[in-house]
Amino acid sequence: MSSNSFGKLFTVTTFGESHGPAIGCVIDGCPPGLAITPEEFRHDLDRRATGKSRHTSQRREADEVEILSGVYEGKTTGTPIALVIRNTDQRSKDYGDIASTFRPGHADYTYWQKYGIRDPRGGGRSSARETTMRVAAAVVAKKWLAERYGVRVRGYLAQLGSIAPAGFDWDAVEHNPFFWPCAEQVPALEKAMDALRKSGDSVGARVTVVAEGVPPGWGEPIYGKLDGDLASALMSINAVKGVEIGDGFAAVAQHGSEHRDEMRLDGFTSNHAGGILGGISTGQAVVASIALKPTSSILIPGHSVNLAGEPVEVVTKGRHDPCVGIRATPIAESMMALVLLDHALRHRAQCGDVGVVQPRIV
Amino acid sequence: MSSNSFGKLFTVTTFGESHGPAIGCVIDGCPPGLAITPEEFRHDLDRRATGKSRHTSQRREADEVEILSGVYEGKTTGTPIALVIRNTDQRSKDYGDIASTFRPGHADYTYWQKYGIRDPRGGGRSSARETTMRVAAAVVAKKWLAERYGVRVRGYLAQLGSIAPAGFDWDAVEHNPFFWPCAEQVPALEKAMDALRKSGDSVGARVTVVAEGVPPGWGEPIYGKLDGDLASALMSINAVKGVEIGDGFAAVAQHGSEHRDEMRLDGFTSNHAGGILGGISTGQAVVASIALKPTSSILIPGHSVNLAGEPVEVVTKGRHDPCVGIRATPIAESMMALVLLDHALRHRAQCGDVGVVQPRIV
Amino acid sequence: MSSNSFGKLFTVTTFGESHGPAIGCVIDGCPPGLAITPEEFRHDLDRRATGKSRHTSQRREADEVEILSGVYEGKTTGTPIALVIRNTDQRSKDYGDIASTFRPGHADYTYWQKYGIRDPRGGGRSSARETTMRVAAAVVAKKWLAERYGVRVRGYLAQLGSIAPAGFDWDAVEHNPFFWPCAEQVPALEKAMDALRKSGDSVGARVTVVAEGVPPGWGEPIYGKLDGDLASALMSINAVKGVEIGDGFAAVAQHGSEHRDEMRLDGFTSNHAGGILGGISTGQAVVASIALKPTSSILIPGHSVNLAGEPVEVVTKGRHDPCVGIRATPIAESMMALVLLDHALRHRAQCGDVGVVQPRIV
Amino acid sequence: MSSNSFGKLFTVTTFGESHGPAIGCVIDGCPPGLAITPEEFRHDLDRRATGKSRHTSQRREADEVEILSGVYEGKTTGTPIALVIRNTDQRSKDYGDIASTFRPGHADYTYWQKYGIRDPRGGGRSSARETTMRVAAAVVAKKWLAERYGVRVRGYLAQLGSIAPAGFDWDAVEHNPFFWPCAEQVPALEKAMDALRKSGDSVGARVTVVAEGVPPGWGEPIYGKLDGDLASALMSINAVKGVEIGDGFAAVAQHGSEHRDEMRLDGFTSNHAGGILGGISTGQAVVASIALKPTSSILIPGHSVNLAGEPVEVVTKGRHDPCVGIRATPIAESMMALVLLDHALRHRAQCGDVGVVQPRIV
Repeated sequence: MSSNSFGKLFTVTTFGESHGPAIGCVIDGCPPGLAITPEEFRHDLDRRATGKSRHTSQRREADEVEILSGVYEGKTTGTPIALVIRNTDQRSKDYGDIASTFRPGHADYTYWQKYGIRDPRGGGRSSARETTMRVAAAVVAKKWLAERYGVRVRGYLAQLGSIAPAGFDWDAVEHNPFFWPCAEQVPALEKAMDALRKSGDSVGARVTVVAEGVPPGWGEPIYGKLDGDLASALMSINAVKGVEIGDGFAAVAQHGSEHRDEMRLDGFTSNHAGGILGGISTGQAVVASIALKPTSSILIPGHSVNLAGEPVEVVTKGRHDPCVGIRATPIAESMMALVLLDHALRHRAQCGDVGVVQPRIV
Repeated sequence: MSSNSFGKLFTVTTFGESHGPAIGCVIDGCPPGLAITPEEFRHDLDRRATGKSRHTSQRREADEVEILSGVYEGKTTGTPIALVIRNTDQRSKDYGDIASTFRPGHADYTYWQKYGIRDPRGGGRSSARETTMRVAAAVVAKKWLAERYGVRVRGYLAQLGSIAPAGFDWDAVEHNPFFWPCAEQVPALEKAMDALRKSGDSVGARVTVVAEGVPPGWGEPIYGKLDGDLASALMSINAVKGVEIGDGFAAVAQHGSEHRDEMRLDGFTSNHAGGILGGISTGQAVVASIALKPTSSILIPGHSVNLAGEPVEVVTKGRHDPCVGIRATPIAESMMALVLLDHALRHRAQCGDVGVVQPRIV
Repeated sequence: MSSNSFGKLFTVTTFGESHGPAIGCVIDGCPPGLAITPEEFRHDLDRRATGKSRHTSQRREADEVEILSGVYEGKTTGTPIALVIRNTDQRSKDYGDIASTFRPGHADYTYWQKYGIRDPRGGGRSSARETTMRVAAAVVAKKWLAERYGVRVRGYLAQLGSIAPAGFDWDAVEHNPFFWPCAEQVPALEKAMDALRKSGDSVGARVTVVAEGVPPGWGEPIYGKLDGDLASALMSINAVKGVEIGDGFAAVAQHGSEHRDEMRLDGFTSNHAGGILGGISTGQAVVASIALKPTSSILIPGHSVNLAGEPVEVVTKGRHDPCVGIRATPIAESMMALVLLDHALRHRAQCGDVGVVQPRIV
Repeated sequence: MSSNSFGKLFTVTTFGESHGPAIGCVIDGCPPGLAITPEEFRHDLDRRATGKSRHTSQRREADEVEILSGVYEGKTTGTPIALVIRNTDQRSKDYGDIASTFRPGHADYTYWQKYGIRDPRGGGRSSARETTMRVAAAVVAKKWLAERYGVRVRGYLAQLGSIAPAGFDWDAVEHNPFFWPCAEQVPALEKAMDALRKSGDSVGARVTVVAEGVPPGWGEPIYGKLDGDLASALMSINAVKGVEIGDGFAAVAQHGSEHRDEMRLDGFTSNHAGGILGGISTGQAVVASIALKPTSSILIPGHSVNLAGEPVEVVTKGRHDPCVGIRATPIAESMMALVLLDHALRHRAQCGDVGVVQPRIV
């Protein structure tokens, strides 16, 4: 299988470099008959887009999706759906000075070591620009999940540097540029981000994604477990260094009598497991969190080497998010949606669209 | 691809239930010419085995590996290597009483909901017994990694419940039943575990795995990243709820100037990244950690339901580890070895066995 | 994906050498709830077995299938089904003299060139002994196809050397050792085969397989076409040099007005297409034929080279079928069954278990 | 794996409908450092293009390839290469009348039965227009095969209806619109084709492809055999109903003493096997042939049904090749090139870039 493809039955293949002519994807395995228009991509692409607020990178592009195939008279036909977005804001001058040096903490060095060649324009293939197409592909997946299975996937920023939410309200999340679940803290976040940008530094973040409505039974033991596939999907997002399902690392210090989710006839009494047991969904909400490292492209000088093998000091100018984690929220939702739809189809293949197996408590 | 197969080019397919006739695996894609004998599986299988100390489950089996194919006159031939271990200690009476109930926190319920049928003997396919074959398969992978690439993979218990190591010494790890890196703490650990078992409860654990000698360049962006594949591999281990690469979740509160690993001509000055940038190995040690939840099978009664849809109280008797995380150390090493060899071969396929690409700082 | 695995959703992985300890397979993706017993493998394994008549190789083995996993109380559980057959009739002395020479027309030379090592005992992995496990795996597939979809797969010998059937009767096929569809010709075939064996030579054969009851809609354009997958499956059988769907090579000299199958309300008026158009089943019988080359292991001396790079003359003694094509009939059926079930599941994944799409003419 | 993807390590994913906005492909796994420009696609695309002579369909398009990704400063970077060709000659009026009927012998009916929806414009996804992208992708593969391995792939028309070549000369093949290896027959072929077009009917064809320079050792037994993969690749071409390797179906009537290719120190004495034994290349030329059925879209009325379930008589007007087999020559070459490069990389992954294993006779 191609390393630029994701998903076994709902397969998304992405292509494109940050400052090449275009980025795009091919969605293969989409069930036929789903209504989809170019306009439907707008909402989630805007949520992911840079330049949305002063707290994210100032790259400004229309990100207009063109559907090249797989849709006829507004409906999917079951054949591959190709989506393309032209790169219009290619300020390659911003990046020209880094073609011969390796930014510390960046993929510059590893791409060079792997391939012996790299496209330095905006990070080339290693840029988070690629995630635009994950979000686009997931628009299709989310719609199918919602229409066919009643599944809803949404996420929020669960930590910004060392700041944690003081309250939780889903309604707040979509009404501030941080995807933050506590409206009262937003001014403080703005202030903290302004100070951070001024300092030329960056911070990490934590994002949590929740899928509601997932029926029990999705996930394929042993090596296609739902949590295993989520881990791979989420870890593949730029800057992610950790993945948790449910309580995650908090489970290390828990006792079994505390962690296990007891079952009553009217449902589970808790959800420490994050909706997955033995790699299969329980019917509860599927909950995953990710850790994103602080942006490596910062204004503070750092030691590195250049192509000539000489020591250099690197300062990364240009437009960069001081916290890449903020924009990761819709990307993480997208990866969860892609995993879930893939497993919905895999479950259907092996076990059919079976009705409820009794007893079902969720 | 089969959901019971792992790896793209070095592919391991496992089969078998905890108390069925046998467990086994098929290794496909092993390079030809590697010397291997049944005896070489002994060491790692013993490290993983239950019944090794009083702190792990008391199932006692010889775990004798039989090589059914793929080896001729002591050398791999390039054809699939099948390994089988007969299950000899099948105390199915231990488990008979749980055939009609669902243990809280266990995969009983989800397997039932997925398949409408399950093998209740010892947890069937969901049992950690399956991981025996991962360890067996990884013996082959580890040997090839060592001989061909000079890579060494080893792990240790990095937290036991709320106890963290007070010191670190690789030499200590293999000389106590906890894979603990600080010899002085071992008596305290023994005491804590005895108390835990007496209480009928269990705790979680954290395991860290380190691969030294990995050259730069292994890993395939975007969806076959080395860290993405490690995340999937490690999350697929029973009871794992979280995966970290390098600093993992600690990176959330870090600043970019702190997290990024600067480069000098004589190497990186730190390894916050855990040896991976952009999904590709940097040449530093690859470091991953996992969170294991506390064992769900405990003696403390818990609420659940049964097959008849009635509320029940469940007490899981029989032999169970009060901390499954302890034995996870060799399993986690094994998964990392399988991922690394797979990526070694994938790198060789696309980029060849290239020599050093200058400048190489590691 | 492993090269010793076949099928995307109903995945069969085989292992084992002709004269190693055992041969076996792992079936992954089998739907749960199918009743299966070790005895059910007997019939098709006997049909494939050598030593059945004096016209096939005289290797005599019980070919007892042991089910190692995936079946609980007589029903499949959805987890991988491992089947193993011990090799009991290992006359490795028969083959000892060929360890250092390459038989002309045999895989000896190519295995050596590929791997730099080979298991010479009975041809090792290249032996048709491997096909035993295809037949075993297909017993499961055939049963599911019959029970769930009403599909029946059967085959016959359509040419033996230059002898073609003089008549056609499905009932005759299973009542002679040649799977020959014309009972009157059987004595003549016996005579021809006796003469052939006496001459020390061999002949080729043609086998045709037919699947009835396949609904329209199975097959995935473009690179997972039903005919494309059948071609790969059938070509993978030892000694096969050609594959045809429907009229096959006869279509070269046909006109479009003759070849196309016209449609009327009560069905297609012909089946030149062999039940597949655009890679998707039409609802008619799926018909495929294969060409099998004459056995290369013969008593007539042939020029070759040995491991030392010297010219040698090779005579292959031991037990060999003078026409490998005869036993290929159940193997070809098996491969078609595996392809069909895989596509049934793939269709279900993408398109669901839809009812009839009007108009349906078959 | 996606059904619109081909190849395990050199993976090509195609998309696009005959009369949609564009067709395209994504090539994943291309080794880095290969020089490639948009102009290099011109030659083979012209060879495949319709409208080249009066004997092929009169669709006229520039088929300008745009490289959207994966190439930097004229060299491949190892990241996915996306190629797109805009559809400019969309005479959808030609096809409008067939949206509600099913052409006999065409994929109209099966796409409808599979998906419950279809894009009727020019056959949509089932059109041979898709093969344009196979040819484009293979330009990259052919170049790598030539530069890295010295492999050359070329093909010719081996039969046109009932006309067979009267002589053979590779030099003639590229100098007539039929890819015919005998220059003297070209006038007769022109005449036959003109008569055929006048009659409104069509004929089948046979194409043979030859790869020279393939080293011994490519191909992966058992289910990734070189001939198995070739069979799948070639059968996936529109209108193909049969595939042969080497002597193919002629082997049915041959004796073993005649078919086997004897070996001498200076090489094989014949090539009945078509360069493959046991699924692995022998080092001889790899030879495959395909049977193409006559075009189903003809001017002669045929019985069919329509969407309303009524009987209709269908006449397919518009531009259609009276012999689709002619243009299949470059397509068949392309598929062989894709298979060979994929296997080159697979071999390198498992066995390395080994030197000659002695004795090598080719």
